[in-house]
Amino acid sequence: MKRIAFVLLAATTLVTVAAFTASAARRAGQPGPALFVKKIPPGYRDWKVVSVAHEAGDLNDIRAVLGNDIAIKAYREGKLPFPEGAIVGRIAWAYVSSEENNKACGREQSFVAGAPTEFYLQFMVKDSKKYAATGGWGYSSFDEDGKPTDEAAMKTCFPCHQAITARDFVFTQYAR
Amino acid sequence: MKRIAFVLLAATTLVTVAAFTASAARRAGQPGPALFVKKIPPGYRDWKVVSVAHEAGDLNDIRAVLGNDIAIKAYREGKLPFPEGAIVGRIAWAYVSSEENNKACGREQSFVAGAPTEFYLQFMVKDSKKYAATGGWGYSSFDEDGKPTDEAAMKTCFPCHQAITARDFVFTQYAR
Repeated sequence: MKRIAFVLLAATTLVTVAAFTASAARRAGQPGPALFVKKIPPGYRDWKVVSVAHEAGDLNDIRAVLGNDIAIKAYREGKLPFPEGAIVGRIAWAYVSSEENNKACGREQSFVAGAPTEFYLQFMVKDSKKYAATGGWGYSSFDEDGKPTDEAAMKTCFPCHQAITARDFVFTQYAR
Repeated sequence: MKRIAFVLLAATTLVTVAAFTASAARRAGQPGPALFVKKIPPGYRDWKVVSVAHEAGDLNDIRAVLGNDIAIKAYREGKLPFPEGAIVGRIAWAYVSSEENNKACGREQSFVAGAPTEFYLQFMVKDSKKYAATGGWGYSSFDEDGKPTDEAAMKTCFPCHQAITARDFVFTQYAR
């Protein structure tokens, strides 16, 4: 009997603390659920290659899409949805014509990675609970100095990725 | 005395066998020094990214340039010439317009990695002794099935890479 009372008390305390914390957060003007990832995942530059791409138009970048070990394993096994902890990232560099290569090749044909772009680093972090509101993925974007992209621009991530429901909202496919 | 005689005999035998093997190789029309690498370095698909590029023209590919740990360390430390054992590789995929991405973006701007190309995999392997005749690097090239490119085509590697003496014959620079 004593034991049951203690468990009930403990549970009630927990609920009360949780409710207080949530309401304090709301009073402080903080949003309820997490929306965006604000930290660059450590070690991303050592991750394995998913694929590569060139975005023309306003972006005009050339990019490497990388994955952490959880993401790469899922890609290689064709496992969908991606498991918790998977991170897919991409590095975008300016799309630059290489004078040096063109001279060696004898013609204008070589485009290489230049300086980091305004949207240098972007990551999708799988956490189904934390990012339930955006399909289980938290989105992030950082400029050439590692500064997070402003939230207004970040709000365009999920609406666009929603086009790819069949592959768990991930555009890039693994290049063999 | 007996021992010395045995060692001498063993050494003489070795020299004789080596001379016989070399002359047999010459008779069979095989070249003396190694020229090209004929094996795909194991684990290359897990290597870290050096940079990315798009070769237009006849090649029309999009590529990831990767390095084994020795090469990546040298790149990051700006160490030249590259140390023994360094391997720089590149994977080339067909340069393909992505209908799926363009639809999501609302315009024609996205080019992605398609199927492996005719010159799918290429590697430079640093071994100053073995490949002394070609600047200390052994060159290799493999098609989409992993079959080595014919030697006539391979003979164009070194003459072209010679343009980059200042960076130990390596075109691709590390993308930050």
